[in-house]
Amino acid sequence: MSNVGSDSMFPTTRQMCQQWDAQDPLAPVRSRFVLPDGMIYLDGNSLGPPTVDSAQALHDFATDQWAAHLIGGWRSDGWMDAPVRLGAAVAHYIGADADEVAVADSTTINLYKMVHAALRLRPDRRVLVAADEDFPTDTYVIDSIASQVGAVVRRCDPQSMASLDFSDVAAVVCSHVHFRTGVVNDLAGITAAAHAGGAVAVWDLSHSAGALAVTVNTDRVDLAVGCTYKYLNGGPGSPAYCFVARRHHADLSQPITGWLGHADPFAFEASYRPASGVQRLVTGTPSVASLVALERGLAATADVDIHQSRSKAVALTQLFIEVLQGNTSAGPSNSLLSLVSPGDPHKRGNHVSFAHPNAYAIVQALIARGVIGDFRAPDVMRFGFAPAYLRFVDAFDAATHLNEVLASNEWRHPQFQVRDAVT
Amino acid sequence: MSNVGSDSMFPTTRQMCQQWDAQDPLAPVRSRFVLPDGMIYLDGNSLGPPTVDSAQALHDFATDQWAAHLIGGWRSDGWMDAPVRLGAAVAHYIGADADEVAVADSTTINLYKMVHAALRLRPDRRVLVAADEDFPTDTYVIDSIASQVGAVVRRCDPQSMASLDFSDVAAVVCSHVHFRTGVVNDLAGITAAAHAGGAVAVWDLSHSAGALAVTVNTDRVDLAVGCTYKYLNGGPGSPAYCFVARRHHADLSQPITGWLGHADPFAFEASYRPASGVQRLVTGTPSVASLVALERGLAATADVDIHQSRSKAVALTQLFIEVLQGNTSAGPSNSLLSLVSPGDPHKRGNHVSFAHPNAYAIVQALIARGVIGDFRAPDVMRFGFAPAYLRFVDAFDAATHLNEVLASNEWRHPQFQVRDAVT
Repeated sequence: MSNVGSDSMFPTTRQMCQQWDAQDPLAPVRSRFVLPDGMIYLDGNSLGPPTVDSAQALHDFATDQWAAHLIGGWRSDGWMDAPVRLGAAVAHYIGADADEVAVADSTTINLYKMVHAALRLRPDRRVLVAADEDFPTDTYVIDSIASQVGAVVRRCDPQSMASLDFSDVAAVVCSHVHFRTGVVNDLAGITAAAHAGGAVAVWDLSHSAGALAVTVNTDRVDLAVGCTYKYLNGGPGSPAYCFVARRHHADLSQPITGWLGHADPFAFEASYRPASGVQRLVTGTPSVASLVALERGLAATADVDIHQSRSKAVALTQLFIEVLQGNTSAGPSNSLLSLVSPGDPHKRGNHVSFAHPNAYAIVQALIARGVIGDFRAPDVMRFGFAPAYLRFVDAFDAATHLNEVLASNEWRHPQFQVRDAVT
Repeated sequence: MSNVGSDSMFPTTRQMCQQWDAQDPLAPVRSRFVLPDGMIYLDGNSLGPPTVDSAQALHDFATDQWAAHLIGGWRSDGWMDAPVRLGAAVAHYIGADADEVAVADSTTINLYKMVHAALRLRPDRRVLVAADEDFPTDTYVIDSIASQVGAVVRRCDPQSMASLDFSDVAAVVCSHVHFRTGVVNDLAGITAAAHAGGAVAVWDLSHSAGALAVTVNTDRVDLAVGCTYKYLNGGPGSPAYCFVARRHHADLSQPITGWLGHADPFAFEASYRPASGVQRLVTGTPSVASLVALERGLAATADVDIHQSRSKAVALTQLFIEVLQGNTSAGPSNSLLSLVSPGDPHKRGNHVSFAHPNAYAIVQALIARGVIGDFRAPDVMRFGFAPAYLRFVDAFDAATHLNEVLASNEWRHPQFQVRDAVT
């Protein structure tokens, strides 16, 4: 496995991939997940698979908790504590302390809370710096908040953010790994630049948590949010999380003050009195069924060494790119394929994107072959490599399929041109 | 059954209750739910039980949808449409048109969206009228929004609201049925008064949807929110809903602008362009597992005539009160019991509350007997009568248990004094 990506091994053969799989210390982790037979799933960066115990856990939640204990389940089955208990499980993946993370609501709503919280930490400033071309929900939320509070949004290229002057800025908001390109932004450098100017650093970790060794505390991140249904395998729309560095806990204020963020929710007091710590980020009643599935997903890779899994993901993406680019028989379609992600694997996350004028149809042709990537408008095909359940042969076979689709012009078939996919 | 509550039938006997159950056209509905043996569950107004197919539906979601289709499930299994599909199912319960309701997020977050939306419909007004002593999350959200936008909150007794002058008011916010007392507020009258003053009427239907014949469109309600885990049996923390009357769809604007409320989410446009109708109320990715359970809950009583079920609930609450108040042997503890809910059953929802100085301990003693009500600080015991699965004998037996607990001073046992319940 250590040779993957080195020139000396080129060209890679399928047999070499099988050998790497046989030696892969993470290989047994694959058996913790349910994956369809014959499918090569390169979309775990969009939605991870269930664990082998997810279905049973959901069933048992309904029979052994909800049906058995009804209202008593809030106490007896740990539902009430789930936002902070699962927050502690998420903390492990992002380099936070256990009590610095709460799980609740969606990434969109949590970002809304965190950007408002950041502005409240810097009440004398009304400039927000946001990464340009960031994931749309981040952009929309920041714009909406700016119009609410009369702030100005400055959009900047994250590649230059670490050298900007933030001395009039309340908060800098950026995704750690870009959803389309996979570019890894400079978490430590941009955070340091934000602090140098007196700004608060707010990060969206959706595409990095569970993929990279995220170290929010080492890097002095102030606030962060992220999604749990990608590399954390929580299931479709599983609740998201907020991170708040402990140094901000006392002054933390967020706009959606709900009863379960109250210091004593069952006292039914007339005025809001925030709970201590991240509990105050919780607003309404947590969606327990979704949390049950998420808890299984978080447990499934809790014992995996993130450095080891990141190394494997780097190797998988390198392998995929090499097999694609080493192909010389695909003809003109192949020559139109251009790597959108950084060529240096350490500068990209665990997904790889290529632009192609016919990206949509090519992705559909691959899906028909059982190779699941996704299309991101206008012209990007995106392939995620979740090291917990992908094998080297999967990366090899996927690249081979893509080469064949390009060489055969298979993607030109009319059935692949109709845009109705929502993924 | 039609005789319940009439003086001529007093005193009610258990045998009479059995006869009413035998004649009850709703009796078969009970078999659609899973309830613990031997428990009399009078807390369905806090958390309804699962349906008999909830557990299997959750299991099958994980195996037949998530595991089988992975990212493709968003399209093939209707996950993407779930907020509006389930919204249509909720609409049935509140007298709305199918396309006027969306299911998403929590009641707290939806109320936050709706109160902001109301203020945006009346940009020249900065007064909010809120019901005093309303459910805390409603109070906290309104206070938070007021401080954000510089609005003034006027708290009023809902009993007098229908005769107030709202000519400087942006929005009137009120719960239809009060969480503690069960008082039914005047939905039509208060809404008409709001409109007479030019204000927007925002209602919280958490304790009335599925209990009363709520008629938001007949009564010209503008905006509403509600919870789905009470009488709609969606499961702990199941996602909540927003109603927006069609006349406001074109001008509707809400503050948490997420990607799934965009007109074309997968175009990944740089600017927010709201989807038409209630889809724009959706913010982040819906929590599918929770929606699967909710869909079963909504289906379980979709064919039940609400007038019939409301009549049964009125009869159940009357029966419970009569058996309690008809008791003359309970001694001093009983004399301290006072009905907090209106004596006129048409002026209260499907739950009945009593105040007692020792309410907490009495509720604990009842729970130990398998009669599940709940305590609401400071001194209220609350009993909900969900007509879908409660029998007349349940109401009779529950009242008998309560009389026994009071007469025996059983509630004085030390084990019932320790306050650690979260319900």
